[in-house]
Amino acid sequence: MQRSFSLLTFVFVPVLAFGQAAGPESLVEQYRADADRLIDAALADSFAYDRLAFMTDTYGPRISGSQALEDAIDWMLDEMNEDGLENVRGEDVMVPRWVRGEETLTLLEPRVADLRILGLGGTIGTSPTGVTAEVLVVNSYDDLTANADKAVGKIILYNNAEWTGYDTTYRRSGAVRAAQVGAVGSLIRSVGPVSMYTPHTGASSYADDVVKIPHAAVTIEDASMMQRMQDRGQKIVVRLNMDDVTLPDALSRNVIGEIVGSEFPDEVVVFGGHIDSWDVGVGAMDDGGGVVAAWEALRLMKELGLRPRRTIRVIAWTNEENGSRGANAYKNAYLDQIENHILGIESDGGVFKPSGFGFSGSDAAFNLLTEIGHLLDRIDSGTITKGGGGADIGPLMREGMPGMGLRVDRTEYFWYHHSPADTMDKLDPHEMGLCVATMAVMAYVVADMETRLPR
Amino acid sequence: MQRSFSLLTFVFVPVLAFGQAAGPESLVEQYRADADRLIDAALADSFAYDRLAFMTDTYGPRISGSQALEDAIDWMLDEMNEDGLENVRGEDVMVPRWVRGEETLTLLEPRVADLRILGLGGTIGTSPTGVTAEVLVVNSYDDLTANADKAVGKIILYNNAEWTGYDTTYRRSGAVRAAQVGAVGSLIRSVGPVSMYTPHTGASSYADDVVKIPHAAVTIEDASMMQRMQDRGQKIVVRLNMDDVTLPDALSRNVIGEIVGSEFPDEVVVFGGHIDSWDVGVGAMDDGGGVVAAWEALRLMKELGLRPRRTIRVIAWTNEENGSRGANAYKNAYLDQIENHILGIESDGGVFKPSGFGFSGSDAAFNLLTEIGHLLDRIDSGTITKGGGGADIGPLMREGMPGMGLRVDRTEYFWYHHSPADTMDKLDPHEMGLCVATMAVMAYVVADMETRLPR
Repeated sequence: MQRSFSLLTFVFVPVLAFGQAAGPESLVEQYRADADRLIDAALADSFAYDRLAFMTDTYGPRISGSQALEDAIDWMLDEMNEDGLENVRGEDVMVPRWVRGEETLTLLEPRVADLRILGLGGTIGTSPTGVTAEVLVVNSYDDLTANADKAVGKIILYNNAEWTGYDTTYRRSGAVRAAQVGAVGSLIRSVGPVSMYTPHTGASSYADDVVKIPHAAVTIEDASMMQRMQDRGQKIVVRLNMDDVTLPDALSRNVIGEIVGSEFPDEVVVFGGHIDSWDVGVGAMDDGGGVVAAWEALRLMKELGLRPRRTIRVIAWTNEENGSRGANAYKNAYLDQIENHILGIESDGGVFKPSGFGFSGSDAAFNLLTEIGHLLDRIDSGTITKGGGGADIGPLMREGMPGMGLRVDRTEYFWYHHSPADTMDKLDPHEMGLCVATMAVMAYVVADMETRLPR
Repeated sequence: MQRSFSLLTFVFVPVLAFGQAAGPESLVEQYRADADRLIDAALADSFAYDRLAFMTDTYGPRISGSQALEDAIDWMLDEMNEDGLENVRGEDVMVPRWVRGEETLTLLEPRVADLRILGLGGTIGTSPTGVTAEVLVVNSYDDLTANADKAVGKIILYNNAEWTGYDTTYRRSGAVRAAQVGAVGSLIRSVGPVSMYTPHTGASSYADDVVKIPHAAVTIEDASMMQRMQDRGQKIVVRLNMDDVTLPDALSRNVIGEIVGSEFPDEVVVFGGHIDSWDVGVGAMDDGGGVVAAWEALRLMKELGLRPRRTIRVIAWTNEENGSRGANAYKNAYLDQIENHILGIESDGGVFKPSGFGFSGSDAAFNLLTEIGHLLDRIDSGTITKGGGGADIGPLMREGMPGMGLRVDRTEYFWYHHSPADTMDKLDPHEMGLCVATMAVMAYVVADMETRLPR
């Protein structure tokens, strides 16, 4: 067997060599060595994981308007300078300041019990005496409409966590729909497939012409319990107390660091995630991991002496969770340079095992990115699929910038998202390293390749 | 194919009939019909699950000394009478009354944060101003001993949840060991393999000759965080406030219902689990499910008109979790009848998918029970393994009674045990039905068979 293998090698090698010499060097051939160095460096240690752990352990959750967010931003600016990144700066953004107060839901009938809740982001509070009312459990807006006559004066519980998208869930608009039929409070079953008595928060909104009522998430456990109580005809009475309040807007910052391009410094790949988080857990997964992974990709390029032809700009956007003010402020500030925003790359789905990127842009660009993806074959993370982006690069994409979002194993994302369980122990240093490697190779090659990524 | 099958039947039937006629009818042959009726009835609907849901939804957690426990007991007595069980009674037991108060653990350095805790059962409280101290993280008692000089005045955190048994964990004796080296508080990493910021309580104890210090469980998330902080040299300071208190003993009851034996009414199979639970979650798994499954088994025998030769006595023991007073009271009250306690059957591991029983007793008894187990082959739950019993039948077993514990799929038991997540949604009506069937068949045949189970 060994002999015949040698023979095959002898026969085919000249053909391959001839093929290489005949055409231009492919992207894969051209960048194989640099890509391997980036991948090796990203997987050599747990620097990114350790840095994220330091940040989340030391500053904790980073909700917009909090001192913790600004302290984390100060630390990140210092560290980026230490890393030798260029043009390190914070760019001012005014952000909403919604502050969670004491929140209690007391079951009064059929028994007395404290039920755990999390107010949804932006909710109003109750009066100091709270809202005491009977609960009406519904499973859809249709169900609510069909039972509208029973909803007056009630607290509605939407016992349905089917994920139909951020804008269409009961989480987003449940309070408005409940108020429209005369309810005095709105509760949702927490969004997520698994619960260990785990409430999940998330963004919600009111309508200008509909009375605002308090809006909170209960656990899957308690939503199921109240469903059973209603099904067997037990009367459910609760008292909802919430001290949540929206204060005047506060000053925050988008954090920016760069490696300036050697040939086309004005052409920019923007690259990052969001530095803010909800006020529960520590935002390790959502989205500290995404921010730190992009940052680490730049640090490794710097360390390896890889300066691309175009600029790579890592951005830690502020206020993604409850306003997207950072993303919009950046877009507004750089709108006159949108043509030179070559590509946006975002990671906001957790730094779990990566499989590639979802991309929104032209077919010509898709084909080039697919070719680059083969540099990631050895870590199985280079598949480019059509459609993708992210909340923070969204405003730029709507102005014409091609965009891509890191795709990862999402099995556990909704277990932890927006909950007290979004913590470091849910992440794995090696998987985070794979994300760093994947993002680094993609950003570097797009920024460095001779061809400017076509629109 | 049908023809040749008929031919085979024709050939073998006379042989089988001859075999049956030659020897005494086996237990399997004798009880096949009754066993199948019990199994079919147990799987026909979700009566047991629904009854457990009603109990846990309506009365909630049932810690010893609480009104909820006594209300649940009153309800159970009424329902057992409704079911037509015989000699339904509550037997008085004085139980400990440990009451959880407000419990907070505030991280003061390196950042300020509220960390979730659960005091361990029986812990003392702190003074109203709490205990403020630096945290020393250790991973074993050896580690504590090696760092004894650093432990004085500290709060010890045992960051190790390896399960070595109920009596040997840090949960049981961590406070004593910490106090012995001069610590002022004791924290453990919650026992369990998976956490969604989930603290778990459990029984703990003090020693008469060692100063009592407060003792609580933190989540896996926070234990990991404090480990990382210590590893990187960050100083950890916390303030522990606990209002937990032990009040004078309270009156509770063991709940008993029977089907009286037709031939040997004084010979008894005891059968059940514990009605009390911890004060978090609702004790659906631990051990409402076990109690209700045993009770359901008797209800089905009654409904099917199956009265065994010996008495089956379902017992819902009180105060298993933090004292085993119910089990000891029963043993003391019936010690003169211990010779007629034929077998104890307990379920206290969750009513998940059952596989059989663990048995402690003579080989002769083991062989008989193994034969009975084959009646459960069709639901794959009749394997008898050596070694087994339970906390509530333990005192009787130590007096010579053979005992067995239902064996179930324990994959998720420690996910939920003693936590706010021990709720109905963790159980499955069909799996609970399988437990009912398994327990019913075993209890019925042992109580009815001609042979008295040998000691």
